[in-house]
Amino acid sequence: MEERPMVKSHKLVVNNRKTSMVTGVLDVLAFDLNEILLETEQGMLMLKGSDMHVNRLSLEKGEVDLSGNIDSFAYSDVHVPGKQNDTFFSKLFR
Amino acid sequence: MEERPMVKSHKLVVNNRKTSMVTGVLDVLAFDLNEILLETEQGMLMLKGSDMHVNRLSLEKGEVDLSGNIDSFAYSDVHVPGKQNDTFFSKLFR
Repeated sequence: MEERPMVKSHKLVVNNRKTSMVTGVLDVLAFDLNEILLETEQGMLMLKGSDMHVNRLSLEKGEVDLSGNIDSFAYSDVHVPGKQNDTFFSKLFR
Repeated sequence: MEERPMVKSHKLVVNNRKTSMVTGVLDVLAFDLNEILLETEQGMLMLKGSDMHVNRLSLEKGEVDLSGNIDSFAYSDVHVPGKQNDTFFSKLFR
């Protein structure tokens, strides 16, 4: 699926719902205490939880380390389009 | 949350949205091609996707290996109760 020439593989690791390590990250599009939106090699990845923090971010390596109370992850293949109905997040994950 | 005497830690690993390894699994409550519901040391864990398969299951070790097109994960602290409104899944993840 991801046999692009220079793909860093995307990996997601979650330990005890408390910490998470993500590789293959292209960009961090948004984050606050409750939601973190990452652009990854495998599409958009939305993490939801509470008291979430980005502890380490290296876009050069494509790595993000997170901590917090992790509730869910959702991938989306949808690209952020120019449509104007609804909010940014509801468009991504409808 | 899970301070039982013999806790195995719960870890979730996803590679390129295609394969997943979960540890700290207490039970597999349900699975079909689109949804897998695991009881873990950290609560219920619902995986959604398509063409999903359980490739290896060892409840003795608390390990499950999955493959498929993985779309999302959601944890839930809700225990499966005796309430009778809605469906099983909607109760868990409302």
